[in-house]
Amino acid sequence: MPVVPLYELQMIGTAVFAVTGVLAVNRRGLDVFGAVVLGCVTSLGGGTIRDLVIGAPVFWLGDHNYVWVAFAAALIAFFAIRSFASTYTLLLYLDGLGAALFAVAATEKVVGLGFGPVVAVIMGVLTSIGGGLVRDVLAGRPTLLMSREIYATPVLAGCTLYVLLRRMGVQHQAIGIAAGAMIFAIRAAAIRWHIEMPHWLTSE
Amino acid sequence: MPVVPLYELQMIGTAVFAVTGVLAVNRRGLDVFGAVVLGCVTSLGGGTIRDLVIGAPVFWLGDHNYVWVAFAAALIAFFAIRSFASTYTLLLYLDGLGAALFAVAATEKVVGLGFGPVVAVIMGVLTSIGGGLVRDVLAGRPTLLMSREIYATPVLAGCTLYVLLRRMGVQHQAIGIAAGAMIFAIRAAAIRWHIEMPHWLTSE
Amino acid sequence: MPVVPLYELQMIGTAVFAVTGVLAVNRRGLDVFGAVVLGCVTSLGGGTIRDLVIGAPVFWLGDHNYVWVAFAAALIAFFAIRSFASTYTLLLYLDGLGAALFAVAATEKVVGLGFGPVVAVIMGVLTSIGGGLVRDVLAGRPTLLMSREIYATPVLAGCTLYVLLRRMGVQHQAIGIAAGAMIFAIRAAAIRWHIEMPHWLTSE
Repeated sequence: MPVVPLYELQMIGTAVFAVTGVLAVNRRGLDVFGAVVLGCVTSLGGGTIRDLVIGAPVFWLGDHNYVWVAFAAALIAFFAIRSFASTYTLLLYLDGLGAALFAVAATEKVVGLGFGPVVAVIMGVLTSIGGGLVRDVLAGRPTLLMSREIYATPVLAGCTLYVLLRRMGVQHQAIGIAAGAMIFAIRAAAIRWHIEMPHWLTSE
Repeated sequence: MPVVPLYELQMIGTAVFAVTGVLAVNRRGLDVFGAVVLGCVTSLGGGTIRDLVIGAPVFWLGDHNYVWVAFAAALIAFFAIRSFASTYTLLLYLDGLGAALFAVAATEKVVGLGFGPVVAVIMGVLTSIGGGLVRDVLAGRPTLLMSREIYATPVLAGCTLYVLLRRMGVQHQAIGIAAGAMIFAIRAAAIRWHIEMPHWLTSE
Repeated sequence: MPVVPLYELQMIGTAVFAVTGVLAVNRRGLDVFGAVVLGCVTSLGGGTIRDLVIGAPVFWLGDHNYVWVAFAAALIAFFAIRSFASTYTLLLYLDGLGAALFAVAATEKVVGLGFGPVVAVIMGVLTSIGGGLVRDVLAGRPTLLMSREIYATPVLAGCTLYVLLRRMGVQHQAIGIAAGAMIFAIRAAAIRWHIEMPHWLTSE
């Protein structure tokens, strides 16, 4: 069985998150510098916070490919923004894929460093949604925590599945595929059928 | 004289901060995930920033009880929110107690790690108000820095008292009680009699 | 040739940033505590984030002069705020000088720690604009990323010049002066002639 190219998938996730970061703020009359910074923050912010909290060296210090991919993707997105209008729905799905990839890669990294399941799940969710939270705060937009969008909940479910299967001794690569598929499937269903959190799980 | 159960008091502070975090944002139509994250951020955020800045391992990585207490308290608060309406004033006082506990525990921790009084006072204040600041930023609310509420000032006074008494050689536990009591007393008085910062200490 | 007093220039930058931090938020009816915290955050925030990301001890833990200078400058600015009204333009220039000083000092520090040019440029920009970003987020103001102001772009250009000249083997002090002068000159021209980012570099 061939090895899943996790590194390449992470680079795709990095590029996709940078693009969605630029798209998310493009209607606000900001310049190319602001757009590129917000794209890179969306891509690299979650993993940066994760590494600070667990005390690991920040991942992109040792591998600038992350920086260059995020930078290039954000720059291209800024100038190609009109072409993206028609593919916005495609980008929602790609963003869901990026969230799944980041969550699985982060959970795997944190477990591999010897942390327990609680920390692994927290860090999986934080890596997946942290960059978007910082982007929204810097851009003055409401964060996804304040919406009923089903975005973080599948990430939480997928990371929990990851640590459960890991404890049961399932083979690593199979776990990653199962957890990632679960996150993407729930998120994609929420996008496709406009599913929001049920009212009994929402205040007011 | 019995030892003051600092650990238990910190757990109470953690629970109270998680509850106030959920209450602070409950009118915004957010779902259970957002509410629980914001509750945990309020509880754990200040101490996390403190540990990052002083270069200590983040406290809840090594003791998940903090995470579980914050998680459970936020979850209960989300579903029991209607019952809290009548006890909102009680919660203001409990929140003041939490601020006092966190400030004293943080100052003690930082002094114990060998840092000087300036850093200890800064970290005491940061731990006490940092979680609430991050919560307000993520929730899109004005932070307490932008209000005339007497909240952070008693914390600053109490942490300063702590390091002064410590330098004078007063016994540790007595210092903690004195500083904590001072913070809570001033905050409680401000709540009880609706005291705000005087105009000469306010811009405009 | 006398040594450029980098330390003294950094202290001037620290004081100036603290003053601009207080001025930036003074119309919002906040009290002296909030104003001083926001002034100190503006001064010390960028370098704090830089040190966390590169894994260096946070600079003001080991040298409290930074804290005292920021604190005193913010406190004076709060009470002297009416006198500043007529000198606001002067402050814009001083703020540009502070940005130039912080960017050069940060790039130099990061290069000196053995990091490559990519990280050095990122950290130079982050140190220069990071404090202002955190201040704006805490104060509920739109960040400079969302404006067309020419502020961060000269910083990016100057830090890039720094690492290029360094690679070419130019003498350190000359590099610092060249990069700092470039940042300040572009920023000052933008202030003087109200230059904004051209439309083809701005979305919408």
